[in-house]
Amino acid sequence: MLAQIDLSRKIDKTEYKTVMEELSRRLAALQREAIQLKIPIVVVFEGWDAAGKGTLINQLILTLDPRHFSVFSTLQPGEEEIHRPFLWRFWIKTPAKGRMTIFDRSWYHRVLLNRVEKHKTLKNFDWDTAHHEINSFERQLTDDGNVIVKFFLHISKKTQRDRFAKLEKTASMSWRVSKGDWSRHKKYDKYLLALEELLAKTDTDYAPWTIVESHDRRFATVKIFKAVIKTLEERIAGVKAQASQKQNGAKVVTNGDNDGMTVSILNRVDLSPALEKADYLKKVKKYQERIRDLEHEVYVKRIPVVIVYEGWDAAGKGGNIKRLTQHMDPRGYEVIPIAAPNDIEKRHHYLWRFWQEMPKAGHIAIFDRSWYGRVLVERVEGFCTPEEYKRAYREINEMEEHLANYGTVLVKFWLQIDKEEQLRRFTERKNSPFKSWKLTDEDWRNREKWDIYQDAVEEMLFRTSSPHARWTIVESNSKYYARLKALKTVIGAIEAKL
Amino acid sequence: MLAQIDLSRKIDKTEYKTVMEELSRRLAALQREAIQLKIPIVVVFEGWDAAGKGTLINQLILTLDPRHFSVFSTLQPGEEEIHRPFLWRFWIKTPAKGRMTIFDRSWYHRVLLNRVEKHKTLKNFDWDTAHHEINSFERQLTDDGNVIVKFFLHISKKTQRDRFAKLEKTASMSWRVSKGDWSRHKKYDKYLLALEELLAKTDTDYAPWTIVESHDRRFATVKIFKAVIKTLEERIAGVKAQASQKQNGAKVVTNGDNDGMTVSILNRVDLSPALEKADYLKKVKKYQERIRDLEHEVYVKRIPVVIVYEGWDAAGKGGNIKRLTQHMDPRGYEVIPIAAPNDIEKRHHYLWRFWQEMPKAGHIAIFDRSWYGRVLVERVEGFCTPEEYKRAYREINEMEEHLANYGTVLVKFWLQIDKEEQLRRFTERKNSPFKSWKLTDEDWRNREKWDIYQDAVEEMLFRTSSPHARWTIVESNSKYYARLKALKTVIGAIEAKL
Repeated sequence: MLAQIDLSRKIDKTEYKTVMEELSRRLAALQREAIQLKIPIVVVFEGWDAAGKGTLINQLILTLDPRHFSVFSTLQPGEEEIHRPFLWRFWIKTPAKGRMTIFDRSWYHRVLLNRVEKHKTLKNFDWDTAHHEINSFERQLTDDGNVIVKFFLHISKKTQRDRFAKLEKTASMSWRVSKGDWSRHKKYDKYLLALEELLAKTDTDYAPWTIVESHDRRFATVKIFKAVIKTLEERIAGVKAQASQKQNGAKVVTNGDNDGMTVSILNRVDLSPALEKADYLKKVKKYQERIRDLEHEVYVKRIPVVIVYEGWDAAGKGGNIKRLTQHMDPRGYEVIPIAAPNDIEKRHHYLWRFWQEMPKAGHIAIFDRSWYGRVLVERVEGFCTPEEYKRAYREINEMEEHLANYGTVLVKFWLQIDKEEQLRRFTERKNSPFKSWKLTDEDWRNREKWDIYQDAVEEMLFRTSSPHARWTIVESNSKYYARLKALKTVIGAIEAKL
Repeated sequence: MLAQIDLSRKIDKTEYKTVMEELSRRLAALQREAIQLKIPIVVVFEGWDAAGKGTLINQLILTLDPRHFSVFSTLQPGEEEIHRPFLWRFWIKTPAKGRMTIFDRSWYHRVLLNRVEKHKTLKNFDWDTAHHEINSFERQLTDDGNVIVKFFLHISKKTQRDRFAKLEKTASMSWRVSKGDWSRHKKYDKYLLALEELLAKTDTDYAPWTIVESHDRRFATVKIFKAVIKTLEERIAGVKAQASQKQNGAKVVTNGDNDGMTVSILNRVDLSPALEKADYLKKVKKYQERIRDLEHEVYVKRIPVVIVYEGWDAAGKGGNIKRLTQHMDPRGYEVIPIAAPNDIEKRHHYLWRFWQEMPKAGHIAIFDRSWYGRVLVERVEGFCTPEEYKRAYREINEMEEHLANYGTVLVKFWLQIDKEEQLRRFTERKNSPFKSWKLTDEDWRNREKWDIYQDAVEEMLFRTSSPHARWTIVESNSKYYARLKALKTVIGAIEAKL
């Protein structure tokens, strides 16, 4: 419907001044309130070239407290960005709690260019997949309490031509109109068609579009202010209502999740497989050499690889990872140990810190524990709400699907040992002067909750074993057996993608 | 992960008796509470052949008050069902508020068969599209307050074979094992693979799957009871918490939507096009004959057609529809006038009654007003909450996309007149003894709210003009012009699909 919109609307100078005084005052007050309530705010500016994006963003930020917002200009993606899933660079720029990020162009820009232009700059680009990824990205943010305001600045083809021509005539401005601008201008109608589809597919109740008629700067400014104000007012009222609900103690009581009825996969795992040291030593070298070759191949073919290690305390994650990387080229891989989130990380969506660590195409990232902490330790210890960990299964599946869409090789290991084996290893550690540092009081406390953890593990294995991201259970009572199985699995997964 | 699940779990007879006494009592109490709170409940039973679905459903319903549930057995789709989008027959069976529908097999069954078997029984079937349609269907239900519990009854290949063999040996039972059963049994592993993907893609936080290990009937029964009880307890607690929040008056205050900043499409519509009567008469006959031919063609080719008429009071919907259908074969089309929902309809999702009316493939349904009432009159008059009408844009887009996926020709008309023309027509009606019945007090009241309605119309046109379902604005100050434009548009849309 973009083509049919009335673009002639104007606001005169006197009216503008009065209205804006009031709106600026209100917006500033709302920003302060949002900071206090720790609401993260995402503002997206998209629009035609020469629609006045720069000017309008400036109008908006003049009113805001500059300590609490950042403007992120989406230029051509750099080396770092081309070699990662296309939402990566936006994920890492999402605002912390109480902050505002203004995107001067955003995740929509490249998707649109890729649709219309011949040279494609997004790897493995698929138009429909892009809509789905964008919608799940935006929903993950709003589910986590973000406010998203999306503007599309609309001008007609004629106005765009006039503005380009005027800029070109002004000596100091002429550099601002490039060949690319004129070439895109000629394809205005093609862009319009693609835009209408893009806007329709991504106009959701959690992140709706606001179309800004941008022929008249004053009209556009007022519309932008009003939209931001309205969205903030609604969210702030919502947050306050929720808070008062909590105070009134009207909380949802459930019976807990431990009814002994969760699906069991682990009970079936046969932990007896073992391996003689001699056999192990013979094979491990061969596998490690193969891994080294494959590391080189994925680099050449620019395939990103993500390997996740989860498992019981003392299941042997460290030793397993050590054998995996022993002969690898350190420039091609990174081991990322995951501990409890720090203060900065806590102020973001819980997936945010993992997005930071996603490997470039051609690189291998090995996670020693991972985003699954949300549905394991955070769930069991009550570090997140039941709603949050239940939502997390979907969020994790979506993130892993985005990785898979980008062509990532994803291997997920659950290192399984039984309770007796864990006790044996704990005792051994306790009694060994070289290993006792590895054993903490927390390990013993976790061990007491074995059954509760097992329920969480079972549910995790079941709910996050999607077709593009299967779990491999590594029987780890025998360390030798476990190491070879992990090596073999990684080799198989990479070979399948080559 | 289905293949790896431990299926050996059992409950012994004595324990079962004690546990079930308690569970039955609780479930019965919860059902009563859900009825009082008007919560609609959907229970889905899927599973392998011979997993014991019938027995387990019986166990469940024995405990329930039979006046408040229905069991719907999903057999082979009949003629009525084959010629409609695949979710149609489930939409119309969704429970009213306070009722429970138990689906003995469901929307998953045919999707799975279609994936694995060679002969496809779903028209225009696409595996990924089916996941999306299912997820949006289930989300629409839960958004509207439905509780969804989904069971998959799991048994191993070996157990299935043993059970088939045992049934065949028992004379009175042997009819229950068909050739099809054995043929599917042979493809157990193929089904397993497809199932894992299907379950993963449709395991959402709003409608998660519960896998029921069904080797032991007692274990399965207890697991099913516990899952239903837990889900109901959570929802009931949630509904009560919400109610107490409402009582505490902690409601979200917004500034209303009328800030004069909505996008305008209607202002741009040029209402001057007119047509001489002679010209009109010459052409209308020709178009009407073409429509009649096309009606026959869509019948032969089994293409469903949906035509929606929306517009201002006195914009001429009735006359326009009359000209459209004047020469059509009445067996091939139906005009569906939409008024305010009746009591039964109010107890369902607001889209439910429109799903009832969706045409069979090869038929034409003409809606005189439609599901857009939700974002027009219901929005303006406050018959639904702001959250509900905002959600409705997405729900409508999803429904129309499902129609489009099925191959439906969808034409949506907005009949536009200006305020002066409406007044002229109202006055004419008032003064004409033959037309005065057409004019009600409500028409005058609506007219007073012209600007508020216009905002709602503009937002509707903008947000629901998705690529597969565009609006056509019909300039209707001239009735002759409007009628021909509508006829031409319908002709064009059908021809494009042939």
